[in-house]
Amino acid sequence: MLQKLRSVRQSELFRGVSAEVAAEIDAICRIKTFSNNEVIHPEGELAVAIFYVVNGLVRLTKTEAASGREADVSICEPGETFGEYLLTEGVNYVTAARAADVTDVAIFDLMKLRKLAGRHPILQTNAARIMSRHLSEAFRCISADRLQTAPQRVANYFLGRCPEGAAQASFRLPFQKRILAGKLGLAPEALSRAFAALADAGVNVHGRTVTILSVASLRAAC
Amino acid sequence: MLQKLRSVRQSELFRGVSAEVAAEIDAICRIKTFSNNEVIHPEGELAVAIFYVVNGLVRLTKTEAASGREADVSICEPGETFGEYLLTEGVNYVTAARAADVTDVAIFDLMKLRKLAGRHPILQTNAARIMSRHLSEAFRCISADRLQTAPQRVANYFLGRCPEGAAQASFRLPFQKRILAGKLGLAPEALSRAFAALADAGVNVHGRTVTILSVASLRAAC
Repeated sequence: MLQKLRSVRQSELFRGVSAEVAAEIDAICRIKTFSNNEVIHPEGELAVAIFYVVNGLVRLTKTEAASGREADVSICEPGETFGEYLLTEGVNYVTAARAADVTDVAIFDLMKLRKLAGRHPILQTNAARIMSRHLSEAFRCISADRLQTAPQRVANYFLGRCPEGAAQASFRLPFQKRILAGKLGLAPEALSRAFAALADAGVNVHGRTVTILSVASLRAAC
Repeated sequence: MLQKLRSVRQSELFRGVSAEVAAEIDAICRIKTFSNNEVIHPEGELAVAIFYVVNGLVRLTKTEAASGREADVSICEPGETFGEYLLTEGVNYVTAARAADVTDVAIFDLMKLRKLAGRHPILQTNAARIMSRHLSEAFRCISADRLQTAPQRVANYFLGRCPEGAAQASFRLPFQKRILAGKLGLAPEALSRAFAALADAGVNVHGRTVTILSVASLRAAC
């Protein structure tokens, strides 16, 4: 548990706060482990908490009422906060959140965090910083969905994981391919076809291992 | 000009601030008129301001470097703030902003607004409230793009403009059809096909006037 609390302290919510305030935030936080596919909170439900992914993976989704189909709108990896948009505004969760692996989540009581933020504006600043990044990512996602083909979306995601300045690169996908497909707004079969299309640009995907023979060629190809 | 300043005071940035602070915000704000298609700020440029649409229309877009194509990620109508994500975080504009009509924009000096917000946390709260709404809208946009057909996107947009509880409705589109197409992530011809498809559900579009014969039927159809 101590190890976990140390992880929570890495959260951007704690950035720049005094030891005293950090202790107050700790006191309104609990860690809960969710199993794969378990719902952390449903869409539209009365909001009671803000969350931080200690380890594992969380999908934020929205469901179409008529068809029941759901779309990923964000994938939260360890170190990510979600629900931070509730600190100032809103009474309901605007997405659902579901564990996409065995996942430890730090749960901050919303009402208590709002009270704390009233006394310590730095918490508002920290939440605003996180929200600003999430808004920027959402804008990028909208434009990628609207402008890029499936291979381009995959290539850009891969390029984003290459160390800066690397001529070639090899890395392990941080999650299963079906999660990557959802993140990029693709059907699983469209993701497979994109992998095949990128083979010509020197990209090999074996299991979750991605090898890029020439980062420059891949960049030129997309 | 007085009339315009009164409009600016409607901005959510001013919500709950004292008359003294409002005067300070006024003092760091100027109104500028942009012609149709004029760039308000380019994407990626060093940020110097936060903006408020007094009247007219503003498109926020992102451009794909390789192809030069651009996608709308948000349409800002009168009463909307944009760039509020910069108050806490970020040094560059994450989108471009372009007038989509003759448009009066209130321009708040970013550095001065940041200083004001340091002294008056209510400005941070107000910006966070706006940003929270924008994030929620962006999530909704991502899921609509990923789940809904073109007619469904149009139908949902139309339903959102019907007065609550109305059995039938008629309204004027607040902007040209090509703007609506961009807002919904559709090519203009896909928008036209969607209008044609919705005629069967009792939706008539003549010029910019939309008539919905049965709101309930339209809701059931999408």
